[in-house]
Amino acid sequence: MEAFSDGIFTIAGTLLVIEIAVPPGSKNLWHAVVEQWPSYLGYLVSFATIGAIWLAHSVITEYLDHASLWLMRLNLILMLAVAFLPFPTKLLAEYVREGDSERVATTLYGLSLLMTSALLYLFWRYAIRAGLVRDDADESDVQVLTRRLTPGLIGYGVLIVLGLFVPIAAVVGYLAIALYYLVPLGRARRQRRIRQARSRHGDQNADG
Amino acid sequence: MEAFSDGIFTIAGTLLVIEIAVPPGSKNLWHAVVEQWPSYLGYLVSFATIGAIWLAHSVITEYLDHASLWLMRLNLILMLAVAFLPFPTKLLAEYVREGDSERVATTLYGLSLLMTSALLYLFWRYAIRAGLVRDDADESDVQVLTRRLTPGLIGYGVLIVLGLFVPIAAVVGYLAIALYYLVPLGRARRQRRIRQARSRHGDQNADG
Amino acid sequence: MEAFSDGIFTIAGTLLVIEIAVPPGSKNLWHAVVEQWPSYLGYLVSFATIGAIWLAHSVITEYLDHASLWLMRLNLILMLAVAFLPFPTKLLAEYVREGDSERVATTLYGLSLLMTSALLYLFWRYAIRAGLVRDDADESDVQVLTRRLTPGLIGYGVLIVLGLFVPIAAVVGYLAIALYYLVPLGRARRQRRIRQARSRHGDQNADG
Amino acid sequence: MEAFSDGIFTIAGTLLVIEIAVPPGSKNLWHAVVEQWPSYLGYLVSFATIGAIWLAHSVITEYLDHASLWLMRLNLILMLAVAFLPFPTKLLAEYVREGDSERVATTLYGLSLLMTSALLYLFWRYAIRAGLVRDDADESDVQVLTRRLTPGLIGYGVLIVLGLFVPIAAVVGYLAIALYYLVPLGRARRQRRIRQARSRHGDQNADG
Repeated sequence: MEAFSDGIFTIAGTLLVIEIAVPPGSKNLWHAVVEQWPSYLGYLVSFATIGAIWLAHSVITEYLDHASLWLMRLNLILMLAVAFLPFPTKLLAEYVREGDSERVATTLYGLSLLMTSALLYLFWRYAIRAGLVRDDADESDVQVLTRRLTPGLIGYGVLIVLGLFVPIAAVVGYLAIALYYLVPLGRARRQRRIRQARSRHGDQNADG
Repeated sequence: MEAFSDGIFTIAGTLLVIEIAVPPGSKNLWHAVVEQWPSYLGYLVSFATIGAIWLAHSVITEYLDHASLWLMRLNLILMLAVAFLPFPTKLLAEYVREGDSERVATTLYGLSLLMTSALLYLFWRYAIRAGLVRDDADESDVQVLTRRLTPGLIGYGVLIVLGLFVPIAAVVGYLAIALYYLVPLGRARRQRRIRQARSRHGDQNADG
Repeated sequence: MEAFSDGIFTIAGTLLVIEIAVPPGSKNLWHAVVEQWPSYLGYLVSFATIGAIWLAHSVITEYLDHASLWLMRLNLILMLAVAFLPFPTKLLAEYVREGDSERVATTLYGLSLLMTSALLYLFWRYAIRAGLVRDDADESDVQVLTRRLTPGLIGYGVLIVLGLFVPIAAVVGYLAIALYYLVPLGRARRQRRIRQARSRHGDQNADG
Repeated sequence: MEAFSDGIFTIAGTLLVIEIAVPPGSKNLWHAVVEQWPSYLGYLVSFATIGAIWLAHSVITEYLDHASLWLMRLNLILMLAVAFLPFPTKLLAEYVREGDSERVATTLYGLSLLMTSALLYLFWRYAIRAGLVRDDADESDVQVLTRRLTPGLIGYGVLIVLGLFVPIAAVVGYLAIALYYLVPLGRARRQRRIRQARSRHGDQNADG
């Protein structure tokens, strides 16, 4: 399950760049490259989001004792959503600054991010409920993950509504949520590693 | 063999999305995005089928004691078929609702899925016949896999004929077959894992 | 080195398919799909060649005791050639049946396959010369690999010349070489595995 | 972290080739293929640079005792830059020989390479400062890496300025820097391996 998921994350992240292009036959290349800023913004936000979800996903799979039938189904649906992200990213990059279409593209983009995060949240909640989390997983780590995932979902909901009025502000907000996800998950990882190192030292002392 | 196969599965799954696009210069983006529903349907069916075949393939490779010369050749042909799937998916997405072409696209799509499943079936049957399955593999697990793969093949045959008259019904049927594959294979995996856990506990008891 | 190489092989193999497309606005889809046969042929030959080189490469890396500085450089150049193959494949698929251009496309395709195989040959010869092959590698296995790679190179040379007169015959010949590579390498792998199994049994007997 | 990074490197390297294409409807294919030389040059330089950065990155991760929160963030930013490289490569291939646009494309390409190398340098310096390097890492190895990365950065700076006057010379220079990176890192790897082999032999002697 992990090899398949890791593959989907990295390929989805890297495919984002092949949608970035300058219109053929541009006279002033510098101008044309600067004009593509929505593409760079979309690339940045989607890459950060995919990175954040990948990090959360790998933290979760490390916590798991084993995978159940339903968890694997949920994982496949989550991967379906992750692999789909390059499409709304392309729409966003193309239709920013295009009047009504900008609003449609931003909303679809937000909905895709919301759906991906919601599936990640479901994946995690299901793993806890079904008792698939390891016994030696620290209770506070598990809570940190849950606590962080919830406001992210609310954030996406608020930003989707905001995007109907100020599309570009919503896109910047989506980037902020991705960064918000990246921070504590990294911290949870570090803390666990420290504890592991300590327990290893403890074992050595016990041995010696 | 597994690293190569896993790579093909994930990349084929993720490449499906780069074929999804809105026609350039769409005035009404919302309308244009909704109009692309055959692309989303094709993405969903192909992703589910690739996911199902990947799951069956990884269950089979776990059962294998070792790979033989012919099994590796069969695997390469199977990978050829999996890596090819994005092409009929693209045809399906483009030519649904296009009169006669719709029938051609649906039939080619069905034939591609049938061929991929038939190769998976051959791969599995060959592994059993050639005695490549582990001695400790549970007889009932082996039978579950065989029993499930057979009606899938018949199902594809029936749906290809149905698709000549009601193309869209065939496509929905292809999705149903993928889901049908996904369920029992997951269950077989879970059961094996439970048995493994029990036998491990048994070992510990024997040790203690 | 292996993870990087495996990644290049699988992605190059899978990318081949995104170049296959039916001209937009085809009235008779069945006819248009059949017309694309050079694309399918190119996909088949390139996939088989990449599969054969991947198999040979993984057999070689299994034989290696360690990698040297120059071997890693050679490997990077080999990967450069493998990752390049989708381009001449695309040219072949587009320009078969186009008079003079057909000859150019077939020749370039043959040269790319020859260069990739020659780099694989160099990679293998260098590994032997530099004493990087494991001491426990069977002498006959090493010779099988060397014996098989040499006529393949001569074959490519002959077919490139033939392709100047009968392009399509050369392409079929390239497929034959790929299959010729696939057979003995698989056999070498199997034989080694049998020996390993025997020596393991031997160890167990010695233990008991 | 390593699986994700390896994936990004290989996919970015392989995606470079799908941007190479001959203009549709070329009468003289041989001429058209030769005309694409900037694409081949761009492919070569970018592949070599990605290969060099991948090698340095894997040497660094081997030196690491563990990853910290900030190192993972830096890694994600580095991957963002690596996955972006196919875009400036495409610009370079398209706009070489196009007057003013050539200068813009070469400068943007150089800035992208500079930024990627600078992020790698930061990644390495941060790992040293934060005490994340293993205790058993050889001091001279660590210094070799640092010594080699610094002039590369200066080289990029000089070449970017040179590129404003003689664009093609700058591109050749970028290739030289990639090769310059590849050499000593490989050597450092080899030396470490020799030491490891010796210490293993030492252990065996001690055992015997």
